[in-house]
Amino acid sequence: MGKITGLHCVTCGSVYGSNQVDYTCPSCGPRLGTLEVRYDYDHLRKTLTREAFQDSGQLSMWRYLPLLPIESEEFIQPLRVGWTPLYSFPKLARELKLSALFVKDDGQNPTASYKDRASSIVVIKAQEKGKAVVTCASTGNAASSLAGFAAATPLKTIIFVPKTAPEAKVAQLLVYGARVFLVNGSYDVAYDLAAEAAEAYGWYNRSAAVNPYLVEGKKTGALELAEQMKWQPPDVVFVGVGDGSVISGVCKGFAELQTLGFIDKVPQVIGVQAETSAPIAAAFDAFDGQDVWFEDIEAHTVADSICVGKPRDVVKAVKSVSANGGRFVTVSDKAILSAIIDLARSTGVFGEPAGAAAYAGLLKLVNAGELAGKSAAVLITGNGLKDVASARKVIGKPITVEPSLRALEAHLP
Amino acid sequence: MGKITGLHCVTCGSVYGSNQVDYTCPSCGPRLGTLEVRYDYDHLRKTLTREAFQDSGQLSMWRYLPLLPIESEEFIQPLRVGWTPLYSFPKLARELKLSALFVKDDGQNPTASYKDRASSIVVIKAQEKGKAVVTCASTGNAASSLAGFAAATPLKTIIFVPKTAPEAKVAQLLVYGARVFLVNGSYDVAYDLAAEAAEAYGWYNRSAAVNPYLVEGKKTGALELAEQMKWQPPDVVFVGVGDGSVISGVCKGFAELQTLGFIDKVPQVIGVQAETSAPIAAAFDAFDGQDVWFEDIEAHTVADSICVGKPRDVVKAVKSVSANGGRFVTVSDKAILSAIIDLARSTGVFGEPAGAAAYAGLLKLVNAGELAGKSAAVLITGNGLKDVASARKVIGKPITVEPSLRALEAHLP
Repeated sequence: MGKITGLHCVTCGSVYGSNQVDYTCPSCGPRLGTLEVRYDYDHLRKTLTREAFQDSGQLSMWRYLPLLPIESEEFIQPLRVGWTPLYSFPKLARELKLSALFVKDDGQNPTASYKDRASSIVVIKAQEKGKAVVTCASTGNAASSLAGFAAATPLKTIIFVPKTAPEAKVAQLLVYGARVFLVNGSYDVAYDLAAEAAEAYGWYNRSAAVNPYLVEGKKTGALELAEQMKWQPPDVVFVGVGDGSVISGVCKGFAELQTLGFIDKVPQVIGVQAETSAPIAAAFDAFDGQDVWFEDIEAHTVADSICVGKPRDVVKAVKSVSANGGRFVTVSDKAILSAIIDLARSTGVFGEPAGAAAYAGLLKLVNAGELAGKSAAVLITGNGLKDVASARKVIGKPITVEPSLRALEAHLP
Repeated sequence: MGKITGLHCVTCGSVYGSNQVDYTCPSCGPRLGTLEVRYDYDHLRKTLTREAFQDSGQLSMWRYLPLLPIESEEFIQPLRVGWTPLYSFPKLARELKLSALFVKDDGQNPTASYKDRASSIVVIKAQEKGKAVVTCASTGNAASSLAGFAAATPLKTIIFVPKTAPEAKVAQLLVYGARVFLVNGSYDVAYDLAAEAAEAYGWYNRSAAVNPYLVEGKKTGALELAEQMKWQPPDVVFVGVGDGSVISGVCKGFAELQTLGFIDKVPQVIGVQAETSAPIAAAFDAFDGQDVWFEDIEAHTVADSICVGKPRDVVKAVKSVSANGGRFVTVSDKAILSAIIDLARSTGVFGEPAGAAAYAGLLKLVNAGELAGKSAAVLITGNGLKDVASARKVIGKPITVEPSLRALEAHLP
């Protein structure tokens, strides 16, 4: 288990002990003061080997336990989280003029999204801290993963979702026994209510960004990608961006692997935002290398999981991507919806809109001729079954027929 | 790759070469004459070891290639099919007075159901046979898995579903680019139309039971269960039953492992049918050890994947379960719906109704005191996200609140 040396404020650099602060830097506050977990990398460099992960025998993200902030292994849930499949599509890569194309399908996590990587950690931290209730605000996936991972524990789950959350996601929450509040407002409004309630009632808050341990779970996608590629990660990695925590995690994962000497070269991480929900991309473009300036917006996009106008991890995301040498790209809703279809029909992977957004980002740069000859990976962060209504906007209709060959023949070429 | 020695008719025992017949025994016809694939077990006993599966390095059902009817490995799709997680729930087992309880979550297959195990094989066989089109009738899962596995191949997919198929399943088909016909009739009517069309137009038919290779894919769940339990399978295994192919596959898998000397004891396989869709259970109860007598019915149940009034693999299913020493149990729709909730809240696994039906069967026998002290496994054959509408019938409603602590407090205990 990773020995935490401190929690570092991404804005002022203050360092706190892991038992000193639960959420954000008291001086900088929730928005600016998100914390980053650091470990004793000198010690890890001497003691940890790449083989240790394989030798753990874990076919899940728990193979990276030495790099995770867990103190009590007994709280690890049995659900198989992470070690999701990485697919290579050489023919499609050639068509796109890439040297290689990889798709990592995180829709195959227990509750069908990347968020399981973070929730699995939070459920442990909550129990380590002796909490009885975990809460979060969520566009859907974070909450259903929290409810799923808490289901078989003594923890109670109280969830705040915007009233526009897709029905499948809300149903999933209720199935798992969570208490669900549909907040009359956007995700951003639900977020503030969850934080207030956690503070007022002593609940453990899993909402994005304020909880420093989320990014630790989210970094495991990068660790896996590198290991599954035999420690030769691709040139570029595409990931959809909402609050900024997933991309911060991905950047941190690659950076830690380089620090530990496990990879020579860090892939360029490319954040993909929906055009109409792109405040982090805007903040990144305005970044002067010192302070992160950002402006909240009214976001709207078909990709509900990345529909975030007031991104809570904007500072960490901008600094992480900048340090990584990465960048941002924005895509239209139309491009996202058509990427769902393109991806499914060329690979067999059905992603939810936010997952397909990453593929839309890749296609945009391919079409601009910016990726010729490069190797690329795309993180599909959620299963398409999570939001069938969106997919339905771009698929054709089934053909209703009477049960006879004659009726059928009228519809055959 | 498994060397097929013959295709054996389950009714008359005639043996055909694998290139001689595509579907069923010409003498016995489609209903009675389903074929069983057999291999050179003497040779396999001498050459195949349990370690070979692990040594293959495949974390998918392709680790069992020596027991699968594949001739051309180049047609294997990259999608990670099988090697789904097996969870142990000791606390829940104690509550249910079982010595152990295992849940195998096949909702974590690429298209989120057990059917991927069969479709992944059919897509290969179709290409080996030089077919351009694959077709099937399906209550939903078989079709979406066929469409998903065919997506990245040159095969075209033409699907027939009853007009009552859940929307998520139909959407999944269309996303993958299948041509979808909603047949004005039941699954049974759609089935006959698919068979007629396959015959008339030379398409390769993946509909349940007629295609002998489906059961080969479906047996891999049993192979995995045994291997994941270190070749000490549980006393009883519960599986939902519709057409009868999955349970035939599960029985065959265990039987082959015993034939090969890989397990000493075959677990008792218990088929679970919905009360109002239980023709195979009825045929099993009437079975005299010689001929299988069955009566088709008008089936209806909330568990759409096992809503089959005219089961196509009834002969094989009855004979397989009889040879296994297994049995059938029927459960009400109410019990199925409440099993969805019980399972999700006590394990974190959200199954679709047909998957939860298997758990309902276990609970029924637990309550009857018939499983005390036994170890049991339950196959969850589909992801709950496939049919959220059914789950919604038994979950509570979310609580809508204005975004203030005061509004919230009115709803807290």
